[in-house]
Amino acid sequence: MNPAKVAIISIGNELLLGKTINTNLSYLAAELASLGLPVNYGIVIPDENEAILDGLRTLWPKYGLLITTGGLGPTGDDITKGAIAQFFGKPLVFDEGIWRQVCALFEHRGMQVPAINRNQALIPQGFNALDNTRGTAPGLSYIEGGKTFVALPGVPEEMDYIFQTHVKKMLTEGYHCKPVHHTTIHTWDTSESALAERLADVQINREVSLAWLPQTGRVDLRLSGTDKDLIDQTVKSIVSCISDVVWGMDDDSPASVLQDSLVNRQRSIAIAESCTGGLLQQMLTAVPGASQCFKGGMVTYSNELKNSVLGVSHEILNTYGAVSEETARVMAGRVRQMTRSDYSIAITGIAGPEGGSESKPVGTVWFAFASSGVTTSVKRVFNGDRHAIRHKAAEYALIYLWKMMGSK
Amino acid sequence: MNPAKVAIISIGNELLLGKTINTNLSYLAAELASLGLPVNYGIVIPDENEAILDGLRTLWPKYGLLITTGGLGPTGDDITKGAIAQFFGKPLVFDEGIWRQVCALFEHRGMQVPAINRNQALIPQGFNALDNTRGTAPGLSYIEGGKTFVALPGVPEEMDYIFQTHVKKMLTEGYHCKPVHHTTIHTWDTSESALAERLADVQINREVSLAWLPQTGRVDLRLSGTDKDLIDQTVKSIVSCISDVVWGMDDDSPASVLQDSLVNRQRSIAIAESCTGGLLQQMLTAVPGASQCFKGGMVTYSNELKNSVLGVSHEILNTYGAVSEETARVMAGRVRQMTRSDYSIAITGIAGPEGGSESKPVGTVWFAFASSGVTTSVKRVFNGDRHAIRHKAAEYALIYLWKMMGSK
Repeated sequence: MNPAKVAIISIGNELLLGKTINTNLSYLAAELASLGLPVNYGIVIPDENEAILDGLRTLWPKYGLLITTGGLGPTGDDITKGAIAQFFGKPLVFDEGIWRQVCALFEHRGMQVPAINRNQALIPQGFNALDNTRGTAPGLSYIEGGKTFVALPGVPEEMDYIFQTHVKKMLTEGYHCKPVHHTTIHTWDTSESALAERLADVQINREVSLAWLPQTGRVDLRLSGTDKDLIDQTVKSIVSCISDVVWGMDDDSPASVLQDSLVNRQRSIAIAESCTGGLLQQMLTAVPGASQCFKGGMVTYSNELKNSVLGVSHEILNTYGAVSEETARVMAGRVRQMTRSDYSIAITGIAGPEGGSESKPVGTVWFAFASSGVTTSVKRVFNGDRHAIRHKAAEYALIYLWKMMGSK
Repeated sequence: MNPAKVAIISIGNELLLGKTINTNLSYLAAELASLGLPVNYGIVIPDENEAILDGLRTLWPKYGLLITTGGLGPTGDDITKGAIAQFFGKPLVFDEGIWRQVCALFEHRGMQVPAINRNQALIPQGFNALDNTRGTAPGLSYIEGGKTFVALPGVPEEMDYIFQTHVKKMLTEGYHCKPVHHTTIHTWDTSESALAERLADVQINREVSLAWLPQTGRVDLRLSGTDKDLIDQTVKSIVSCISDVVWGMDDDSPASVLQDSLVNRQRSIAIAESCTGGLLQQMLTAVPGASQCFKGGMVTYSNELKNSVLGVSHEILNTYGAVSEETARVMAGRVRQMTRSDYSIAITGIAGPEGGSESKPVGTVWFAFASSGVTTSVKRVFNGDRHAIRHKAAEYALIYLWKMMGSK
């Protein structure tokens, strides 16, 4: 099924020191998967000649497509090209065409060409230089015995440019393969294991692969395969089996589904937050077009403001506390009224690390949702640290209201 | 020098499909480097028994410390534990202690324990379970012939928790190595090249390495080395040379330095936001203890609320617009007054992608800072996308007020 086994060698000391996150691997992996050439194996190695040679020795015999990233620049720690030439037994030869491009790039910047850049114009004999207009390091490609070798620079925008301009075409033409499709189903308020039990009886065709992707406070399910119809059918079966916990697909976010729902119905919303401290409003406004439904809101972090701005009475604050159903309901009602919005959400809770008690442990959050004539309230206890609790609470509120509105 | 050669096996189909960026590798690599145990080699493999066995077979004989991440959960694609047991030739045994913790976690969430979770309580005989309070999958550790093996779950917050709680201590005690020290200097409102010019004459000892880390809207400088005194001296020379653009060190954030400054002086603050939509308040409240200085604030996203809640007159809105010095100053003054705070910040701008004009392009942001008797206003035009503009604007506001207050 897979037209070539694929491996990637990520070269760079910075990757092994944790200074740089290996986004090149995920970028290439996603691009290759969508071409029907999923990556089977990856290694991450330092900028050392022996490590590169060892990687090439181990992987070149086993894989049909081998791609390296990193170490093609002009400075002393860029040794990938020399190691490649050594491994394939080819001398480095000076390429006039590349040299002219390097000179042109520096001229364009109004700079003298530093002599060190002559290195950039050296390529292993018989290799193909892949022109790089974003920087001075060309990529390389080489085909031997039906196998393909590609070397790309490590700077993400240069790697991206060369992949899109040269490598993609070369692979699409070289391998006659079916692209892979993905669909992601987003769920909430359930656990991976509860979902697995509920889905135990759903038949999943062997041509479709199912991945469980736990996120902070929710679980995503991703279906992949080359047969799009088969994936669509499987998604349908899964969604119909767990529809009560599904809130979105693919690029949907809790804020985007709520925004869509509000905008489609021409409804407006306002927010009153305490423990989430602005995070919920930040999520809503991170989605372009938020002004079509979001009027604004309050962050009443202190009890003083809960009282003076949102009218939560001292009696309620003293009797039930700031983290209570009563406080949440007044907050929601009042912010909706003040802003003349159709809907409102109020959140009050204990994000920690301090402030928990036996009856209200850290993670306790009260939500209230007000609309014309009716206010709903609900309590949840989230686990995790301050960051996780706030994040889970804000997403919970967005999805809860979306559900309440009758989904679509 | 290096007390053990270190390799990491990253397990997960999602990593090879490019759906997930391998942040676990960079996290562990950075943590291990700071313990003096830099990672020498990494592999990235799918959730397949044979791939895991092959990885263990290849790496266990060569490395003194081997760490896996991923595949420890309860579902069908979580097969790491089985492969480990098979490789080390140990049967999986049921651990009552882990089972009690899994049950407790579900109880805490008010949920039934799905039967599938009994898997979580199985560990290879003779292995040590590393307790995970953030999820149901414990980590594993095992020592044989002076070598250390560790398996961590793939969910970053669980991996982080287990590493910090158990693994760090185990490694620090097990290997007697010189830890590498790092100090990071945070700067703002300058560029990498301007800083480089200003620092050209500062002598930096060869034992200290300097890294330039450009962040969204600011530049960090990180100094590393095993000699802490030498680092401290270098930091002093650098900071004294560029003190006007330095706002913090190490774990400081724009919100934390402002919070410290306010709390030390027993001053309170309130915020009025438009384009940042809650992000500034979210940053302030992300720091534990925010309630000691932050009273709350408004997100007046619509002009209607700028008028009705914050008293920005229709005249100002019509004459100068919502993104103007006049609007920002009224917002700041009014939110300070309403909340009876010592200081206030107001932000109004155009985050894009829509809404820009020739005189006010996307990225234009007006800030106002009010305190007793004086209101300061300033305009900045930030570049980048919606996310970057909002982020830069919120951080700029926090640091600006901190500077205005006379820093410390």
